[in-house]
Amino acid sequence: MITESAERRIDAPRLQKLVTNIFEHCGMNGEDAALLADSLVFADLNGVHSHGVLRVPDYVRKLTVGGVNPRGQPKIVRDSAACLVVDGGNSMGQIGAAFAMQQAIERAYSFGIAAAAVCGSNHCGAMAYFTRMALSYDMIGIATTNALPTMAPWGGADRIVGINPLSIAIPTGRHTPIVYDAAFSGSSHGKIRVHHQKGIPLPEGWALDPEGRPTTDPAVALDGLLAPIGGFKGVGLALAMGILSSMLSGAAYGAELGDIINGPRPGLDGHFVMALRISAFEEVATFKTRVDRVIDEMHASRVAPGFDRIYAPGEVEERTREAHRRMGIPLNAVTLADIAQTSAQLGIDASWLTAQAAAKLAE
Amino acid sequence: MITESAERRIDAPRLQKLVTNIFEHCGMNGEDAALLADSLVFADLNGVHSHGVLRVPDYVRKLTVGGVNPRGQPKIVRDSAACLVVDGGNSMGQIGAAFAMQQAIERAYSFGIAAAAVCGSNHCGAMAYFTRMALSYDMIGIATTNALPTMAPWGGADRIVGINPLSIAIPTGRHTPIVYDAAFSGSSHGKIRVHHQKGIPLPEGWALDPEGRPTTDPAVALDGLLAPIGGFKGVGLALAMGILSSMLSGAAYGAELGDIINGPRPGLDGHFVMALRISAFEEVATFKTRVDRVIDEMHASRVAPGFDRIYAPGEVEERTREAHRRMGIPLNAVTLADIAQTSAQLGIDASWLTAQAAAKLAE
Repeated sequence: MITESAERRIDAPRLQKLVTNIFEHCGMNGEDAALLADSLVFADLNGVHSHGVLRVPDYVRKLTVGGVNPRGQPKIVRDSAACLVVDGGNSMGQIGAAFAMQQAIERAYSFGIAAAAVCGSNHCGAMAYFTRMALSYDMIGIATTNALPTMAPWGGADRIVGINPLSIAIPTGRHTPIVYDAAFSGSSHGKIRVHHQKGIPLPEGWALDPEGRPTTDPAVALDGLLAPIGGFKGVGLALAMGILSSMLSGAAYGAELGDIINGPRPGLDGHFVMALRISAFEEVATFKTRVDRVIDEMHASRVAPGFDRIYAPGEVEERTREAHRRMGIPLNAVTLADIAQTSAQLGIDASWLTAQAAAKLAE
Repeated sequence: MITESAERRIDAPRLQKLVTNIFEHCGMNGEDAALLADSLVFADLNGVHSHGVLRVPDYVRKLTVGGVNPRGQPKIVRDSAACLVVDGGNSMGQIGAAFAMQQAIERAYSFGIAAAAVCGSNHCGAMAYFTRMALSYDMIGIATTNALPTMAPWGGADRIVGINPLSIAIPTGRHTPIVYDAAFSGSSHGKIRVHHQKGIPLPEGWALDPEGRPTTDPAVALDGLLAPIGGFKGVGLALAMGILSSMLSGAAYGAELGDIINGPRPGLDGHFVMALRISAFEEVATFKTRVDRVIDEMHASRVAPGFDRIYAPGEVEERTREAHRRMGIPLNAVTLADIAQTSAQLGIDASWLTAQAAAKLAE
């Protein structure tokens, strides 16, 4: 029997090649397919499997029958010095968001700071993929996106606000870059489903029932709402991120995009990205030395009971990435079987994924 | 006996005039004194008394014997198109932050987006005062600041991260503007002290004990740490805001600024402000109509048990402001006595503040 808990380690470059091939078979050009595959495999490398290759079957569905254009190309539709609006052309979100961030980086060379708002887009995966692009240019990257509404406004009970994640990437010197990437909810639907399957109650602060009252019952939570972090604070920031991500570019906001049951309507999603060139403000070396010192201070500070050490944002992911590059990415048998089946439907032989899994299971 | 609970309503313009006079007696010029007074009275008008005139005695102390320069003038020390560094000249934070936001607004006219990092500054009060400046120019305002360290990094126990508040102001059409302004902690020292005085336990999520473990005991919390909203999320964002606020301008970060026991060292604080011109991205009328619609949707959505209605960020403050403008600002007798005493020390007769309070108490 194939169970969720049966995991195999898959070589990252081999996985990347397969997933690129899958997206090419959906009609994407080689460059775009490679970028989309890279964004998913990179999330898995980081240990952020919720945004990794488990999305492949859904992405293939979007690209083949779901109305997303595999040949869609982003283009600049409004251009005002340090500000741009990019129309994703109904491409996958990663294509438009990466294009927009590259443009923002180029403009930040001239102006010190630049921003791009994206419309005509779709699901774009983990935001850190885009903010990290700024790092090698000695820039701070900021990115946010509009998500399907799963939260209520503070004091409400209707799903009309997305958890609208925000990522901020900050260059460092000796240390791994600071890369923050999180949504404004206490948890995610995926984690609530895991608790539901295991029959264990939710921690406080994760969910609200359909009337907007706090609940720790995962079954009730699945019919209810995600709870924002910090009450009015988290949902207020999510609201602001949703407005930045959709209303500067004419993208759909909140329920205009769709709902969590039926999913998003294709080509309506929006994102917002920014790049800040450090040298426009401060000597790069001075900045990096100071950020390094903050991380040193964190590492040297006292650890609370129940924690083994203190990590700056991005350090856990880097450590995971190194391990997964060395030992392969652990993927569960269900994900592997789903990807193999999706591959077969596109005429790609990826039986090695499940053969490998079967071999492991037979051990 | 004068108790905290004895409140009097004070006319806002009269209070503003008195507080301006107080700051002029500290050596500030009329314009700066009026701005500083306005920022405090405006916070009180909004009902955000923690950032209101109760700060007057401390601000006077800073300006007279605390090392802050009442005649300090902000100036641009680095200028790169859409990015600026402003040295506050050891003026009160409001002077430098307002100057920086005005500069950012002017630059955003040319470039669509602009940012200013401030060093050489001091406590700047409520951040919404600066983000709101962008609204009448049809711009989005964003502002953050570095605060004295009162939180630990995630998994830590040492006070090395500030609660570093963030404000975002977004223009609207028919509705009151969206104005978000909050720190990344679950609560504040002031609120914990109130619970301590009243002898009631803290809500969960407000505080950690000195070892970094969650606590609901206010006495323990006062020796411990403020808890971030959303665990690693809140403190991760606070870290990023602290870096933006201090390391782009050369201001002090975290413990470099001082500690919560001894207070900040003068002239080392930093802030970061941004302005985004909506018309660089989207038609202003379209943008405002869409934001209005989001607020309509919030108002029309179902209300959770225990709430009477749903407010967009900034609506509670606007309602409070209208009431306080009409009926006066409710200030407690201790705050009034403190301001009257501070006034007397500067040779200003503000006995009407306490006479009024005494009259009320004698009723």
